[in-house]
Amino acid sequence: MNDNLASQFLIREDVTFLNHGSFGACPRPVFAAYQAIQLEIERQPVAFLARELTERMHAPRKALAAELGTKPENIAGALANATFGLNIVAQSLDLKEGDEILTSDHEYAALDKTWAFVARRSGAKIVRVTVPVPLVSEEAFFDAFVAAITPRTRVLFLSHITSPTALMFPIDRLVTEARSRGIYTVIDGAHTIGQRSLDLDALGADFYAGNCHKWLMSPKGAAFLYARPEVQKLLNPIVLGHGWTPDSKNSDAVGPFGNSPFIDENEFQGTRDSSAWLSIPAVLDFRRQHDWQSVMVHCSDLAWETAKRVTKLTGLPLLADRAFTAPQMVAMPVPRIENPPAFQQKLMDLYGIEIPVLNWGEHSIVRVSIQGYNNQAQADLLVRALKEQFAL
Amino acid sequence: MNDNLASQFLIREDVTFLNHGSFGACPRPVFAAYQAIQLEIERQPVAFLARELTERMHAPRKALAAELGTKPENIAGALANATFGLNIVAQSLDLKEGDEILTSDHEYAALDKTWAFVARRSGAKIVRVTVPVPLVSEEAFFDAFVAAITPRTRVLFLSHITSPTALMFPIDRLVTEARSRGIYTVIDGAHTIGQRSLDLDALGADFYAGNCHKWLMSPKGAAFLYARPEVQKLLNPIVLGHGWTPDSKNSDAVGPFGNSPFIDENEFQGTRDSSAWLSIPAVLDFRRQHDWQSVMVHCSDLAWETAKRVTKLTGLPLLADRAFTAPQMVAMPVPRIENPPAFQQKLMDLYGIEIPVLNWGEHSIVRVSIQGYNNQAQADLLVRALKEQFAL
Repeated sequence: MNDNLASQFLIREDVTFLNHGSFGACPRPVFAAYQAIQLEIERQPVAFLARELTERMHAPRKALAAELGTKPENIAGALANATFGLNIVAQSLDLKEGDEILTSDHEYAALDKTWAFVARRSGAKIVRVTVPVPLVSEEAFFDAFVAAITPRTRVLFLSHITSPTALMFPIDRLVTEARSRGIYTVIDGAHTIGQRSLDLDALGADFYAGNCHKWLMSPKGAAFLYARPEVQKLLNPIVLGHGWTPDSKNSDAVGPFGNSPFIDENEFQGTRDSSAWLSIPAVLDFRRQHDWQSVMVHCSDLAWETAKRVTKLTGLPLLADRAFTAPQMVAMPVPRIENPPAFQQKLMDLYGIEIPVLNWGEHSIVRVSIQGYNNQAQADLLVRALKEQFAL
Repeated sequence: MNDNLASQFLIREDVTFLNHGSFGACPRPVFAAYQAIQLEIERQPVAFLARELTERMHAPRKALAAELGTKPENIAGALANATFGLNIVAQSLDLKEGDEILTSDHEYAALDKTWAFVARRSGAKIVRVTVPVPLVSEEAFFDAFVAAITPRTRVLFLSHITSPTALMFPIDRLVTEARSRGIYTVIDGAHTIGQRSLDLDALGADFYAGNCHKWLMSPKGAAFLYARPEVQKLLNPIVLGHGWTPDSKNSDAVGPFGNSPFIDENEFQGTRDSSAWLSIPAVLDFRRQHDWQSVMVHCSDLAWETAKRVTKLTGLPLLADRAFTAPQMVAMPVPRIENPPAFQQKLMDLYGIEIPVLNWGEHSIVRVSIQGYNNQAQADLLVRALKEQFAL
């Protein structure tokens, strides 16, 4: 939260970058470590990719597992993104005609498409719950979903932090309830790791995918899929290759690279650059060195204060209490915007502000992200820009 | 084929690197361009990935299409590797119990696994033809496969250049024959582009996947899938996401990024680093600047001469005539090796030679690759090493 931290990042200085949420941003030393790994691969590709990679893949998995509150054995990494991980799950589950996939009206468009494809192929049905907004009570959230469960509900699919609305869904009790009813619980954690603490074993969801390149700040293209030990064998990889283990469904099967079939089948997808994944230890080092726990608290405070200032100007309430809002990302309702891309471009042209603008249902939303490289002056500029543009 | 060219690459100078075939190697200026694109993404990720990427993806597709002898519309790019592209095809084809997948005994292990998975799921059957070796006649090759075609043959899957044996299969007439019988023709071109000229439209195969990071020398993780216009609509993406087009099977459907559904569904797989793919124009520039057509001729001559020297020492014939051998990669049969990884390691430890050693059927094989950074002295060292190790 100071200029010193901003200098640790590569973001253009002439841009007020308030959209960490879409693609993240990687600190300079981590980016340097990442490109150094790429160079190392180039200098002796066979040594790196054929002889050393299997062993090198252990360190990021182990380091990340500690952050996620689970064992390394429950994580398959080196996925391009959370969408990839969730596709593994969605395409593996044995859904049949009439089965119901229970989800919310706040999901990420790419995942809505994934489930729509799966539903079309299997004859399953998407059941979309309208989450009570403003979201101010765990009970209201829980009740809305439980009321929609039927004997045909096979899957509960939810974001942990939502993309269009930056809500932090209170999923814990609902996951437990769904599990107790034999419903597969699939969580999209694209925005969580690095923004909030996680304890995946305690949460108990069957499947949980997340991006390390967003809030954890790794280089782009580093995501993971968590699966409970008991459900790992339900999964098939979506890129079949050297890691495929024909007897993977046997309880004592070992993958060709010496890990479980779950890890070998999903991590080893043929020749590609795994440097982003291998940079996980470097980004965790960076966060420790810069006391990122404190940075997160400061960022969260600034994000919330900024949103409160905007809501005071607009008179439009936020979509949730702070407890149910992403710590460093807030969706701020604004007066109706007819052309969100044009408005977004105007904020860039007139103020140099990069921030997402979207219409979500009847809400026009400006979604502010605050990361360690941002500061109070940038928040002030955003408030002034919105004040001017909406003549408030 | 001179020290000047070697200095253009990043390969360690203390290694005699004779295994271009496994992972390729990228020239310094191309690698620099690649990492510069990554830096550009980091400096303004939203501008690059959300606003500019769709447009930027056109240039590599267009440049590569010219090299492949087809239109840009027939290529989906930015795939991690050929295995990924072939998975799209294998998992999309509507195979049924009893259908036959006709293939050879020289295929890449990862693809054998892909088809085995698909066969297990669908009840289809793998029919493996033993290619007559030494391969000295197109007719013998053609006849062996045609004899194995039955009314249940649905797929012909073949490498264009084989991985374990470095054969260049004379597939043209066989592809035409299979097509005329209504058999899907799926070609693994992992080793072709950059090593031999291609005219995919003239070849007429339904599907053809290839790696740009092997012989074309792009950064790692840049592959393409070609599909004939008439069969593009048979494909489903394996990572469903923003590019999915619900009405993709309609003849006039347009993908969400303005390309055909074939391109949008397969190229746009969520947030990831597409820099390797975007470096295709840089690698094509490099090849033009360094008259790579001539380099290829020199490399091919050195590869063939080296193999002939080894065969003269061992008395073991090569697996094919030169016409049916990969131009820059030759599988050299050697006396029986009980432990290929140990022998491979010995060549590294004693001579600093990186070269693949494998047992394929009854053949022990040392597979030599010659690329522009190699030279006569390195070939001489290999011949001496094999002479010494086999006491020839």
